[in-house]
Amino acid sequence: MVENKLGRQIPEPYASQYGVYTGEFTHIKHYQRAAAKVQPVKPRQPKLMQSIHDAIVATGLKDGMTISFHHHFREGDYVMNMVMAEIAKMGIKNLSLAPSSISNVHAPLIDYIKSGVVTNITSSGLRDKLGAAISNGIMANPVVIRSHGGRARAIASGDIHIDVAFLGAPSADEYGNINGVNGKATCGSLGYAKIDAKYADKVVAITDTLVPYPNTPIAIPQTDVDYVVQVDAIGDPKGIAKGAARFTKDPKELLIAQYAAQVITASDYFKPGFSFQTGSGGSSLAVTRYLKQAMEKQNVHASFALGGITSAMVSLMRAGLVDNLLDVQDFDHPSAESLAEDPHHYEIDAEMYASPLSKGSVINQLDVAVLSALEVDTKYNVNVITGSDGVIRGASGGHSDTAAACKMSLVIAPLIRGRIPTIVDDVNTVVTPGASVDVVVTEVGIAINPKRQDLMAMFKDLNVPQFTIQELRDKAYAVTGTPAKIHYGDRPVALIEYRDGTLIDVVNHV
Amino acid sequence: MVENKLGRQIPEPYASQYGVYTGEFTHIKHYQRAAAKVQPVKPRQPKLMQSIHDAIVATGLKDGMTISFHHHFREGDYVMNMVMAEIAKMGIKNLSLAPSSISNVHAPLIDYIKSGVVTNITSSGLRDKLGAAISNGIMANPVVIRSHGGRARAIASGDIHIDVAFLGAPSADEYGNINGVNGKATCGSLGYAKIDAKYADKVVAITDTLVPYPNTPIAIPQTDVDYVVQVDAIGDPKGIAKGAARFTKDPKELLIAQYAAQVITASDYFKPGFSFQTGSGGSSLAVTRYLKQAMEKQNVHASFALGGITSAMVSLMRAGLVDNLLDVQDFDHPSAESLAEDPHHYEIDAEMYASPLSKGSVINQLDVAVLSALEVDTKYNVNVITGSDGVIRGASGGHSDTAAACKMSLVIAPLIRGRIPTIVDDVNTVVTPGASVDVVVTEVGIAINPKRQDLMAMFKDLNVPQFTIQELRDKAYAVTGTPAKIHYGDRPVALIEYRDGTLIDVVNHV
Repeated sequence: MVENKLGRQIPEPYASQYGVYTGEFTHIKHYQRAAAKVQPVKPRQPKLMQSIHDAIVATGLKDGMTISFHHHFREGDYVMNMVMAEIAKMGIKNLSLAPSSISNVHAPLIDYIKSGVVTNITSSGLRDKLGAAISNGIMANPVVIRSHGGRARAIASGDIHIDVAFLGAPSADEYGNINGVNGKATCGSLGYAKIDAKYADKVVAITDTLVPYPNTPIAIPQTDVDYVVQVDAIGDPKGIAKGAARFTKDPKELLIAQYAAQVITASDYFKPGFSFQTGSGGSSLAVTRYLKQAMEKQNVHASFALGGITSAMVSLMRAGLVDNLLDVQDFDHPSAESLAEDPHHYEIDAEMYASPLSKGSVINQLDVAVLSALEVDTKYNVNVITGSDGVIRGASGGHSDTAAACKMSLVIAPLIRGRIPTIVDDVNTVVTPGASVDVVVTEVGIAINPKRQDLMAMFKDLNVPQFTIQELRDKAYAVTGTPAKIHYGDRPVALIEYRDGTLIDVVNHV
Repeated sequence: MVENKLGRQIPEPYASQYGVYTGEFTHIKHYQRAAAKVQPVKPRQPKLMQSIHDAIVATGLKDGMTISFHHHFREGDYVMNMVMAEIAKMGIKNLSLAPSSISNVHAPLIDYIKSGVVTNITSSGLRDKLGAAISNGIMANPVVIRSHGGRARAIASGDIHIDVAFLGAPSADEYGNINGVNGKATCGSLGYAKIDAKYADKVVAITDTLVPYPNTPIAIPQTDVDYVVQVDAIGDPKGIAKGAARFTKDPKELLIAQYAAQVITASDYFKPGFSFQTGSGGSSLAVTRYLKQAMEKQNVHASFALGGITSAMVSLMRAGLVDNLLDVQDFDHPSAESLAEDPHHYEIDAEMYASPLSKGSVINQLDVAVLSALEVDTKYNVNVITGSDGVIRGASGGHSDTAAACKMSLVIAPLIRGRIPTIVDDVNTVVTPGASVDVVVTEVGIAINPKRQDLMAMFKDLNVPQFTIQELRDKAYAVTGTPAKIHYGDRPVALIEYRDGTLIDVVNHV
């Protein structure tokens, strides 16, 4: 075992293989960008394949390779299950699966793990049945959990080498020009898929909307695509928009949002040209709404809003309060539509969004980020991956990326959920280190990380109750009692990579 | 000496180093894409440098390295001379210069060659005083002439490794997001610069129009740029638009254009959804105009027009006759403006335009290309690089790329220029092999390459005089007499690369 800087125990040989977390920016070094092996396409050589089977054969996919998918279709995705079924039928085994994330709909993966088709997984997160099965130990090798920026880094630096990327394409032409804004199942930005297309040796575009050449706008160009396959349906539009939050009426969520908006607007960052990322979820949408009110009232407009784009952000741009939306993925249908229509709504890839090894990601320019949490501990460490039962059910997302890079990070969470405290002595699993977290916002008040003495001074007269993080924990425990320790087994089922590639924590089986 | 497939003598050691031309598509092989060495940029780390000097120091530029520039500013470019003056002042020597092309305004390079600052050059072309000086032998090492697609291939495959790219940026923000459509000196598309930005280890954006972050639209993203420098002026708008052709009134040029348009519209390629590249120059613009008339009359609209975009092509898009413009560079100001305004006017990079080693370039989808020539010989080989005196004064451009990949290539040229024949027994220098040339169009009539028996049948009843290429040569020689041989020396001053990287010809000193 090697103890990392946060006191987390990292077992060998993983500690040696990945290195262990030593700080937010201690592993940012020169590197040689990875690159694809390219099979050039000559004039008159077609890319259109008759079936997914034919495309898989054409790619030369074989045992032991790494394949990838994007998660822009979320709970509406048909592509991963469709391709995996064909791969399983073809008898290919021992694959590494490297999607940008995995949703509930991908529960069939459990069978492919059991049958040896899939023997390694890296993902932003795991949900539901698959998360539970993996936490229960069905895989011999631990899953590697990577942040969105961390995944882009891993691909760009060669830590993940994708042999074949399968890309669900809302629209494509026969030569592989793709966008996410036209078609039967539109998802808007293809920000995560762009990276796979750029770095994978072989890229297969799977579409249900084949359009005449050239398909514009071009989110992913023909020069990044080897084969095109037409299928009946790549996704369920309802599932793609599923989870798109509506404006909350929950008084607790509204209070959290109001406090968060007060923190933001009282800060020195809130001035003309400021920038923010508020994300999805009930409270986050409400923060965006409250921000809108303050921006209108004080005539402060933002240079850009980032991320995960929601209709609430779009409405700010439409109101002239935000100059640009920089969009790595869309959380709802109105956002996807806005990307199609508004030239100031701009599609960016995951590397530009958040990679710590890029020549400067957008998060480096970000003033304020509002992030959620399953747990926050008294060291300000945040868990967004494991539940209170120790089971993997969340996703790393852009949490640790944004928190590390922005000028002020707010972690918003209710003090307790049901009978479970959110503010605790030690989070089950660290995804984001406390060093990256500036203000914790709950419905009873806020706690400012003592390392940010400047913020303490800035918010001296703020009309929001302020506590130490220990006081917030005490308030939570006063309701729930001190939570019992989770009884983990001794076998690692997930390695939690920090965005720089080192291990910040490990999840054992339950 | 090694004789290549066209009977051209390629001296050792160049024949061994590059290989010699063996056919249009015989050297298209698997390869590993090259990639930049990246120095990541952390949050709060600035990219804005106080001067070109400071930026050069920051890049670590030193003796023997390779630097690049783009030629989108053409005769209005200030950037290359400005940077080279600073480099010379700093005493850096023995540099390889790899711009996408070189213009008349870059004559100061002669001094940097003489003083040993520049010891190697690769470019699409050489003009005027510099071309003459190099043809006269001022360089110890021959210049390597590459087509636009060949340069993209050379960079993508690692044959050219750019250590530092200096990019004139019509507008940029402090973090390096660049476009060519806003600013004091706009050039429109940055298609050639995009490749440098993507593959160079270090990239310096030089702008006279620094705008607030984020600068959109983003032609070159911040993730491809290391440093930004603000200067007073990067270019002269008048020089950028210089050479933009007006509609010709020369009866000879009009006749050539009319014949070319007749060939195109009588071909099977001329049907709804067809595509074309017509290029710049008086006759080319006239072809576009005649095409427009035919398209309107016959209600045939094109899926895309490609290339070098001109206002004539823009007017076709505006008239609803062309669905998309795919734009690697703009030849005039109205085209640059259209790129800024019309979402169907689309900026593409040089690799997507024409690289023979990409996963499929746009030229592979092209129906008809209209190309110019300095000379065409009876084997249909084309020279666009050396004058009748053997001096290098032209540019390879996209000539050999487009000719090889499109379905029907037209080479348009007057039979004679002054007292100099254009149709000859043997061109001085082969840039495009006869295998790629389908129809030669002159003011007296056309010659169809006998290898295209299908076209001969197609144009059987065409109302344009038809000759063999030998007959066209005879008509030319009847006026000019048989041209005297150029007396070259024995020292190679330029290697003419075919787009696949092999040598198609060599130019000796005169």
